[in-house]
Amino acid sequence: MTTSTNATVTVLGLGEMGSALAGAFLAGGVRTTVWNRTPGKAGALAAKGAHHATTVDGAVAGADLVVVNVKGDAAAREVLAAAGESLSGRAVLNLTDGTSAEARETGEWVADRGATYLHGQIMTIAPGIGHPAAVIFYGGDKAVYERFADVLALLGGGASFVSADPGLPTLYGMAVHDTMWGTLNAFLHAAALLSDAGVELTRFLDHADGSLSALLGFLPSLAGEVDSGQYAVEYGALRHHLPSIEDLLRESRARGIDTALPGHTRALVAGAVAAGHGGDSYSRLVESFRAGTEPA
Amino acid sequence: MTTSTNATVTVLGLGEMGSALAGAFLAGGVRTTVWNRTPGKAGALAAKGAHHATTVDGAVAGADLVVVNVKGDAAAREVLAAAGESLSGRAVLNLTDGTSAEARETGEWVADRGATYLHGQIMTIAPGIGHPAAVIFYGGDKAVYERFADVLALLGGGASFVSADPGLPTLYGMAVHDTMWGTLNAFLHAAALLSDAGVELTRFLDHADGSLSALLGFLPSLAGEVDSGQYAVEYGALRHHLPSIEDLLRESRARGIDTALPGHTRALVAGAVAAGHGGDSYSRLVESFRAGTEPA
Ligand SMILES: NC(=O)c1ccc[n+]([C@@H]2O[C@H](COP(=O)([O-])OP(=O)(O)OC[C@H]3O[C@@H](n4cnc5c(N)ncnc54)[C@H](OP(=O)(O)O)[C@@H]3O)[C@@H](O)[C@H]2O)c1
Ligand SMILES: NC(=O)c1ccc[n+]([C@@H]2O[C@H](COP(=O)([O-])OP(=O)(O)OC[C@H]3O[C@@H](n4cnc5c(N)ncnc54)[C@H](OP(=O)(O)O)[C@@H]3O)[C@@H](O)[C@H]2O)c1
Repeated sequence: MTTSTNATVTVLGLGEMGSALAGAFLAGGVRTTVWNRTPGKAGALAAKGAHHATTVDGAVAGADLVVVNVKGDAAAREVLAAAGESLSGRAVLNLTDGTSAEARETGEWVADRGATYLHGQIMTIAPGIGHPAAVIFYGGDKAVYERFADVLALLGGGASFVSADPGLPTLYGMAVHDTMWGTLNAFLHAAALLSDAGVELTRFLDHADGSLSALLGFLPSLAGEVDSGQYAVEYGALRHHLPSIEDLLRESRARGIDTALPGHTRALVAGAVAAGHGGDSYSRLVESFRAGTEPA
Repeated sequence: MTTSTNATVTVLGLGEMGSALAGAFLAGGVRTTVWNRTPGKAGALAAKGAHHATTVDGAVAGADLVVVNVKGDAAAREVLAAAGESLSGRAVLNLTDGTSAEARETGEWVADRGATYLHGQIMTIAPGIGHPAAVIFYGGDKAVYERFADVLALLGGGASFVSADPGLPTLYGMAVHDTMWGTLNAFLHAAALLSDAGVELTRFLDHADGSLSALLGFLPSLAGEVDSGQYAVEYGALRHHLPSIEDLLRESRARGIDTALPGHTRALVAGAVAAGHGGDSYSRLVESFRAGTEPA
C-alpha cells in the first residue's frame, strides 16, 4: 500500500513497536525520519529509506507529524522535552502506554509548547502493525486525526477516533485488556478442571464454541443496564448464579484446582445478594467494583 | 414443531425449569406425564394435555424416558429412589445440576437399578428452552441419546453429545460458566472505570466490539498449548503483559475503583514470571490453577 500523502513523519523511539511503526510508514511510501536514544537501532530502517536523525530536535524540526513511542509516559515527556523549541507548530502523536491521566497531562504539556496533540492506544503486538485487523484507538485533536488519516491507516485497518479527550484511548484499551485478562484467566481455570478430567481443550472448544461466543452477546444488555443504572431483570438474576458457583467451587476443591478465582466470584455475588440485590441483573456488580472494596 | 415420536416421557420436578421442559415436550406433541413433590404445580401442564401422576412410581411405570429435574443431586436421588422397582428397564435423563462426581455416581446408582442413564447440562434459562440456540450438553449412554434424539431436539437446537462419561456434560457447562463469570466480572470492572470517566458503555462497545470479539479468537491457540503442554511463544509472552497490568492497577487506584481483580491478575502473571516462565504464552497460567495455590 502506498499513500499519496506528502506529509513527513518522524518516529521517536525505535524499540520493538517503534521500529514496526516506522517500517509501516516506509512501506507506505511516507518520508520518514527516525531517532532513538541508544544509537544503532536505525540501521535496518535507514536501509529501507528512513532519514536517520542523531538529535531529537533535528528529528522534529520540519516534521509534519511527530510520533513518540517509548517505554512509559516519563520517557515520552523526556524525549519531547529534548525537542525544545522545535516542537512548536508540530502535530504530536503519542503512542506510549500509560494511564489516562498521564495521557491527558502530556497532552496539556504539549499544547503549552504550541503543538497539537493526538494520543493513540495500540491494541496489537508489533508484528500486527499494518494489518487490516490491527486496532488503534485515537483521542485528542480530531483535526490532527483527520489530517493524517491516510498516514495512520498504514498502521492498521482498525483505527478509530473515540474522543476529544486524549485520556480516553488509554481507558478504552485498558477496558479491553481488563476484559481479556478476566476471560483468559477464567478460561485457563476451566482448562485446569477439564484437563484434570482428561478432556482435551480443543475438543471442548469444538462443542462449546457456540456457548462461548454467546457470552459476548450478553455485553450489550449489561452495558445498557450500567448506562441506565436500572438493574432489575425478570430472568437470570444474581441469586440464581449462586448454586452453580457453589458447584464450581466444590468441583475445583474435589480436583485440587485453585479455588481463589471462583471464590472471588462467589464473594462478589453473595455480597450483592446479601446487600439485597439478588433480584438484579449480573450487571449490578459494577457497583461493587465502584465501591472499590475487596470482597471478603 | 411436532415430533412423530411414539415415545412417552415423564418429567419429575415441576419447578421453573421442569415446567419449561414438560411444556416443550407437550408443545412437540409428546405424550407427557408430570409429577411434582408439592402438589398444585401441574395444573397448567395438565390443561395442555399432560397426564398428572400423584406418585413417582406411578409416573415412572410405563414411561420410555424418565426426565428428572429438581434442585440438587441429593433431591434427584431421593426422587429416583421413590420410583422403586418401576425404574428397572427405563431410560433416565437427569437434567439436575451438580458436580461431575455426583452425575457419575447417580449414573452408577441408576445402572445398578437396571435402568440406562443419560446426563444433561442445560445451558439456558427456562424461557430459552425450545429455542434453536438453546444448548444442552449430554453424556452417558449414547444409545439413549440417539433413541430419543427427536424428543430431546424439542428442548433446544443446540443439543450435543459430548462423552460416554455422564460426568462430562457438567464439566463442560462449568467450564463455560467459569469463563462467563470471568468475562463478566472483568467487563463490569472495566465498566466501573469507563463510567467513572463519563464514558457510556454502549458507546464504548460501538468502538471496542471488534477488539472484544477478537478475544475469543485467542482461545483455540491457548487450548492447543494447554493440550500439548508447549507454552513457548515468540510474541506476546507473559512478561509483556505486566506493564499494562500495572497501568490498569494505577488507573483503578487513581479512580477509587476495585484493585482486587487486577491485583489477582498481577499476582498470577508476576508469579509465573518470577518462576521463570516470563517467555511463555499466557496459557502457562493453567499450571498455576492446577497447583491450586492462591496467588499472594
Ligand atoms: N511491543 C509491542 O508489541 C507493543 C504492543 C502494544 C503497545 N506497545 C507499547 O509501545 C511502547 C514501546 O514498547 P516497545 O515494546 O517498543 O518497547 P521496547 O522494545 O522495550 O523499546 C523501548 C523504547 O523506549 C526507549 N526509551 C525508554 N526509555 C527512554 C528514555 N528515558 N528516553 C528515550 N527513550 C527511551 C528505548 O530506547 P533505548 O533503545 O535507548 O533503550 C526504546 O526505543 C510502550 O508504551 C509499549 O507498552 C508495545
Ligand atoms: N430455572 C432455570 O432457568 C435453570 C437454568 C439452568 C439449569 N437449571 C437447573 O434445573 C434444576 C431445577 O431448577 P429450577 O430453577 O426449576 O428450580 P426451582 O424452580 O426452585 O424448582 C425446584 C424443583 O425441585 C423440586 N425439589 C427440590 N427438592 C426436592 C426433593 N427433595 N424431592 C423432590 N423434589 C424436590 C421442587 O419441588 P417442590 O415444588 O416440591 O419444592 C421443584 O419442583 C436445577 O438443577 C437448576 O440448577 C435451572
